[in-house]
Amino acid sequence: MPAYDDSNIFGRMLRGEIPAITVYEDEDTLVIMDIMPQTKGHCLIIPKAPSRNLLDASDEALARTIPIVAKIARAAKKAFEADGVQIIQFNEEAAGQTVFHLHFHVIPSYAGTESRKHAAGEVDRDVLKEHCEAIKAAL
Amino acid sequence: MPAYDDSNIFGRMLRGEIPAITVYEDEDTLVIMDIMPQTKGHCLIIPKAPSRNLLDASDEALARTIPIVAKIARAAKKAFEADGVQIIQFNEEAAGQTVFHLHFHVIPSYAGTESRKHAAGEVDRDVLKEHCEAIKAAL
Repeated sequence: MPAYDDSNIFGRMLRGEIPAITVYEDEDTLVIMDIMPQTKGHCLIIPKAPSRNLLDASDEALARTIPIVAKIARAAKKAFEADGVQIIQFNEEAAGQTVFHLHFHVIPSYAGTESRKHAAGEVDRDVLKEHCEAIKAAL
Repeated sequence: MPAYDDSNIFGRMLRGEIPAITVYEDEDTLVIMDIMPQTKGHCLIIPKAPSRNLLDASDEALARTIPIVAKIARAAKKAFEADGVQIIQFNEEAAGQTVFHLHFHVIPSYAGTESRKHAAGEVDRDVLKEHCEAIKAAL
């Protein structure tokens, strides 16, 4: 597996070089809206510690990240009265990973509604900002 | 969300009431082969602490579980020379959850090969036992 390369888009967001729609941030973790959401409320939980994916992440970084994944899952479900939540985390290209900085997808599920495909297209930023505010209010 | 009900199949496995093909076990965690694997090496990581899913799990239980998820992901990838690994965790029926005790799927990915659908059918137990031994050897 290649080494971590901090020129990836999440590395650049963590350094403030490009903007993100930020749902939550603490010392160890950044949570943003996925700009190509599969469903309403699709968020990405990004540990600040550098790792390519789960396979080279430290146990400590993972243990700090997963409670934030749960916190955001609860808030997104509440914000949109979702019926469930999927947590998805891809490692390496064959598994569907497209940005090579560890991240967890939190994807609310709505009964009777199919999800859009992964990375199917961008959604209007103003809509995403509204969704972001709804999740923040539910935290 | 309904309360945790320990009559589910994983609760019964944790009490030894029904058999499982066990990859790994420690004080807090049981890892078994999924009997309806989506790909070769598909494992389930089951925290022993009772919770219906991620939404009602304690931060402590989650923090103890996720390093085991990573450990099994690395071992399964190594055992079968997989090209990647997907981590999937479903919360509530609308999200695809079928057993209501928290569990994480570790699903190796193989380049150029589609996964089978979730819960598409059982695989021969002897084959699963061979895969189990391969992962144990790679731990």
